[in-house]
Amino acid sequence: MTSSDRPVSRRRLLTGGALAAGGTVVGAAAVAASTRDAARPAPAPEQVPVAATVGAATEPFHGVRQSGIVTEPQAHAAFVAFTLRPGTDRAALGRMLRLLSDDAARLTQGRPALADTEPELGLLPARLTVTFGFGPGLFTAAGLDERRPPSVAELPAFPIDRLQPRWSGGDLLVQICADDPITVAHTQRVLVKDSRPFATVRWVQQGFRRAAGAEPGRTQRNLFGQLDGTANPKPGAPVETAVWIPDGPDWLRHGSTLVVRRISMDLETWDLLGRTDREFSVGRRLDSGAPLTGTAEHDEPDFAALGPDGLTVIPDFSHLTRAHVSDDRFRILRRPYNYDGVPAADGTADSGLIFAAYQADVEKQFLPIQRRLAERDLLNEWTTPIGSAVFAIPPGCPEDGWVGQQLLD
Amino acid sequence: MTSSDRPVSRRRLLTGGALAAGGTVVGAAAVAASTRDAARPAPAPEQVPVAATVGAATEPFHGVRQSGIVTEPQAHAAFVAFTLRPGTDRAALGRMLRLLSDDAARLTQGRPALADTEPELGLLPARLTVTFGFGPGLFTAAGLDERRPPSVAELPAFPIDRLQPRWSGGDLLVQICADDPITVAHTQRVLVKDSRPFATVRWVQQGFRRAAGAEPGRTQRNLFGQLDGTANPKPGAPVETAVWIPDGPDWLRHGSTLVVRRISMDLETWDLLGRTDREFSVGRRLDSGAPLTGTAEHDEPDFAALGPDGLTVIPDFSHLTRAHVSDDRFRILRRPYNYDGVPAADGTADSGLIFAAYQADVEKQFLPIQRRLAERDLLNEWTTPIGSAVFAIPPGCPEDGWVGQQLLD
Ligand code: HEM
Ligand code: HEM
Repeated sequence: MTSSDRPVSRRRLLTGGALAAGGTVVGAAAVAASTRDAARPAPAPEQVPVAATVGAATEPFHGVRQSGIVTEPQAHAAFVAFTLRPGTDRAALGRMLRLLSDDAARLTQGRPALADTEPELGLLPARLTVTFGFGPGLFTAAGLDERRPPSVAELPAFPIDRLQPRWSGGDLLVQICADDPITVAHTQRVLVKDSRPFATVRWVQQGFRRAAGAEPGRTQRNLFGQLDGTANPKPGAPVETAVWIPDGPDWLRHGSTLVVRRISMDLETWDLLGRTDREFSVGRRLDSGAPLTGTAEHDEPDFAALGPDGLTVIPDFSHLTRAHVSDDRFRILRRPYNYDGVPAADGTADSGLIFAAYQADVEKQFLPIQRRLAERDLLNEWTTPIGSAVFAIPPGCPEDGWVGQQLLD
Repeated sequence: MTSSDRPVSRRRLLTGGALAAGGTVVGAAAVAASTRDAARPAPAPEQVPVAATVGAATEPFHGVRQSGIVTEPQAHAAFVAFTLRPGTDRAALGRMLRLLSDDAARLTQGRPALADTEPELGLLPARLTVTFGFGPGLFTAAGLDERRPPSVAELPAFPIDRLQPRWSGGDLLVQICADDPITVAHTQRVLVKDSRPFATVRWVQQGFRRAAGAEPGRTQRNLFGQLDGTANPKPGAPVETAVWIPDGPDWLRHGSTLVVRRISMDLETWDLLGRTDREFSVGRRLDSGAPLTGTAEHDEPDFAALGPDGLTVIPDFSHLTRAHVSDDRFRILRRPYNYDGVPAADGTADSGLIFAAYQADVEKQFLPIQRRLAERDLLNEWTTPIGSAVFAIPPGCPEDGWVGQQLLD
């Protein structure tokens, strides 16, 4: 349409960046992306002043452990699962993770990605975190099946499951979280584009919690109206114990595992229910979130307390009773997001939870809880798992490294 | 499953509320909804303290004009279009609008709707606004075709259009905006449920802008990375003149009209383009938003300025040149939201703009601009209208009234 700029190749941009030493390593992506380079280099971030606001806040990318796990949950998330293309082997995976780690390192700090085609959208980190997870297929593609932790595999089938392939599985997961939805959209776009030579998009699940600053310090509510997150392991030792893999091979130490379940919540039948029944189903009050045996959200539930009718005050099949674990070594860190799709013509809601749970060991922590819930949990009447995926979460990386390096390099 | 509460009928709840005098009026909804009542009345809002935060901020619902129009745009929106059921006549429309107005009056002020089944989700207004619009079919259903403003009709077809019925038309529109996504989801749920006896859901478009507090006072960016909203009519006289209908029948004075166009933005081809070409296509710089003839975002564009090549600095077919209008009486108020659906397997983005424009008169203000753009606009290369709908925006209502009363009562 108009004048044609002298193209600046992705490769040239790369030589100015942190990846200079690995120039050849990003070759495949460079070839694939060379035709769509921005013709002028991205403006330096300092050209566009950003006030110290919700938008300017950052979370670290580099470190011993990945961010986005024990990080105070941000308002918005996109969970992006990829299927590796045939031919994406260990070496290609190395190139891919190097590239995506570099994107994440920049964007999380409010700097555009290399050859970011919308660099202005990369200047507002809003506590952006990008967390990588490795599905079973990644180990196979890398020829490293023997290093896959055995429980990083499809979960056993549960009678409550109505799993749909479109929400299940995945060779590589990227969990993108930020307090700003445009930042999430842009980060998703950058990472999906840079993954193209290596992988296709398998599924994307976009979700939300309370907006940043909307209810500071309060537990968020899910679309059933419940306070959701009350009994998560506390910061410090409890969460450390529950989430991080303390030993094992280098590439797993300081890592974790992630189970993502898409669970639809049937608002139609739930809304037919009285409040007392709803509170019985979980064992907590809807207004305060207090256990039925207490008055405040963080009161310890008393599972043995009996009511005048001689039954336990907190029903034995309540979600709380069935899910409860007191030993931190066997607890999970729930980090769910709400989803709300478009309702059907008759108004039937398409709502639910992108249930994301982090734990050191799926087999020892997640599965016993999930088995108890699948066997008997009053809440099952109104919730249906429609997607499921499990990922190994590698440790974080230093500034001159990339996520997964200890496994793939 | 458990004990059964004594049901409190919607009708009984209603008698405690502002609608007491209109008890019979909501009869139809009461019948339809009676089986799904909450068994305990909603807790009073003061039971759950809300700090003075993003979440606690409110916008008025009652007033001469509807909110959500000149209101500083909130971070999240759901545009919900309904098709009226056969038999929803003028009287039924009155009942429907009375009910929905009451829902909106409460929820916007942080009070649960009557018989709100998730009352705790109704306590965080987060600047919630609910704005009602009347499509052509509503006038027909009410037997009031002669009162429909002639330009509240399908727009003429434009050669650039690729309209899909799933994003087009609608008898009644509810535009729900708030700074919190859970508040939007809950409000959508309440309004969709209460509409059931009268209407089905035709389409829902969910969109977002920058998070509240992310970039205070800054123009938002769309997913092309452009500053979007710079040249909107300024607060005060300019926007008053552009937006509000100054005269005509009672039911239209202080009203407006709304055009909603779903416009997909082809990030794939856009990202192939150099920055200079992108800036030419609009006539403004990507970083600062300044016109190509200026240095700051709000500098007046100089459409006559010539470059060394003897051509205008701002291309004659740029979006800016084609869309520009200097007389406030002929300008429109753009209040768009970004959308970002799930990318295809190959990574192709599903991104765009829910382009929403308010103006006193579609024919005099919106159409001349849209005709010029459809005829020639460099930006057309990367944008495609895929949905279109037009609504009359009735005036606001006093505390004892409801939106649309002057037309429908
Ligand atoms: C849509 C599905 C679900 C909903 C709506 C839901 C809701 C809740 C609610 C309201 C609570 C009480 C407040 C809190 O501690 O956060 C809770 C607790 C809990 N849930 Fe769920 N949940 C769901 C699925 C699951 C699943 C799939 C698991 C694990 C397999 C799980 C594990 C837990 C655990 C471990 C607790 C804490 C129990 C305790 O120690 O007190 N939940 N859930
Ligand atoms: C996806 C589609 C569109 C995109 C990406 C887009 C983008 C932009 C941008 C970046 C600007 C300059 C900054 C600003 O003033 O906000 C602008 C201005 C404008 N646009 Fe659009 N626009 C789109 C569609 C439309 C449509 C459909 C209309 C009306 C029919 C329209 C009317 C205008 C007007 C009136 C201006 C201000 C011009 C002036 O007086 O300076 N735009 N648009």
